[in-house]
Amino acid sequence: MPASYLPTADTTPTRKSDRVSYDRAAVHAAIDEAVMCHLGFVVEGRPVVLPQLHARVGEHLYVHASSAARLMRSTREGIAVCVTISHIDGLVLARSAFNHSLNYRSVIVHGLAELVTDAEEKRKVLAAFVDAVLPGRADHMRGVNRKELGATAVLRIPLENVSLKSRSAPPGDDEEDLALPYWAGVIPLTNSVPGTPEPAPDLDPSMAVPAHVARWSRETRAS
Amino acid sequence: MPASYLPTADTTPTRKSDRVSYDRAAVHAAIDEAVMCHLGFVVEGRPVVLPQLHARVGEHLYVHASSAARLMRSTREGIAVCVTISHIDGLVLARSAFNHSLNYRSVIVHGLAELVTDAEEKRKVLAAFVDAVLPGRADHMRGVNRKELGATAVLRIPLENVSLKSRSAPPGDDEEDLALPYWAGVIPLTNSVPGTPEPAPDLDPSMAVPAHVARWSRETRAS
Repeated sequence: MPASYLPTADTTPTRKSDRVSYDRAAVHAAIDEAVMCHLGFVVEGRPVVLPQLHARVGEHLYVHASSAARLMRSTREGIAVCVTISHIDGLVLARSAFNHSLNYRSVIVHGLAELVTDAEEKRKVLAAFVDAVLPGRADHMRGVNRKELGATAVLRIPLENVSLKSRSAPPGDDEEDLALPYWAGVIPLTNSVPGTPEPAPDLDPSMAVPAHVARWSRETRAS
Repeated sequence: MPASYLPTADTTPTRKSDRVSYDRAAVHAAIDEAVMCHLGFVVEGRPVVLPQLHARVGEHLYVHASSAARLMRSTREGIAVCVTISHIDGLVLARSAFNHSLNYRSVIVHGLAELVTDAEEKRKVLAAFVDAVLPGRADHMRGVNRKELGATAVLRIPLENVSLKSRSAPPGDDEEDLALPYWAGVIPLTNSVPGTPEPAPDLDPSMAVPAHVARWSRETRAS
């Protein structure tokens, strides 16, 4: 498998082309690190964007779309979607207002989404959703039964028409602004920082917080 | 001004209606807390979703869309957009795979976006962008000049067709699963947690980190 995706008409930038990458490993890492994606589709000529869970299995992106009921009604034949997965990694403070920026990574996937109908594939994908968000959880829950499997809708999108846009740098001030008496630099940001786990009110109080919950962090997903 | 937005065909849910709110203050708070939004629009019948900066000024949402070059070419007459602003507040761990969930808040704004062309409005909006992300920064930077103003594209969307979807609760397990020997509860998540500010390599090393940088947190935006 080639190390990079092939650029397409959709993923060739019209500006700031130095910020675009097609590197497969970098795209995968940005997808895998995110807890959610934003799924865009068109309904009666107008755009709809919904936050959704996702999981990557090899070169397919799966999106948990139970809540996208109006999408599902029309999708059995496949519909055009755009899935965008974004991380804000830092606030970039420049001497000038104009050169303020963000450090970020954003994967954009264009494709035809199909509904997963095969029970075996669906079962594997649901396991991948759990493992993507909560590594190690599979051994600490009741698996999905046939009725629940039927009640869950999952979309499959091939990772082909895909790119990663990113910025990761100090501020880029204009030469003539460098001597201005303003602090410039980056405030790095971390997302999905876990707090103390909150046991369910109906949980047996003698039950300790298990390791897969106590150690949860976004880093565990990529490992 | 009424305390709630009016439900519309777009914002009336087809399922899980208990999760939808039209409360103006709650919508504003979720918009103001976010560092970025996801802007969806339609190009030649297909969806495009881009991460963008935004700022709310009263009942208008402004979106910084310089990078959406292909959108701007067609938007001078106003184009249909969907702007979605999402927060993941926690991972919800249930006894069953099926009842795993997320605690989240997601504002969805449908509307016709117009390009801001009035120089005075644009100048105010650019100040609002800076203030939205970096409260107090305005006194620590060079303001925008006429050339920079011309090079910046801003969209305006009225806050009318808008709703907030949210979940904020412990897991909702099925009665028959409650006795299973699995830990259930919530892992709360915090986003945009600042690290130690990183001075620009070309910054005078004697310059101390100013208070508006040192104290930055997402909470400061709402206050």
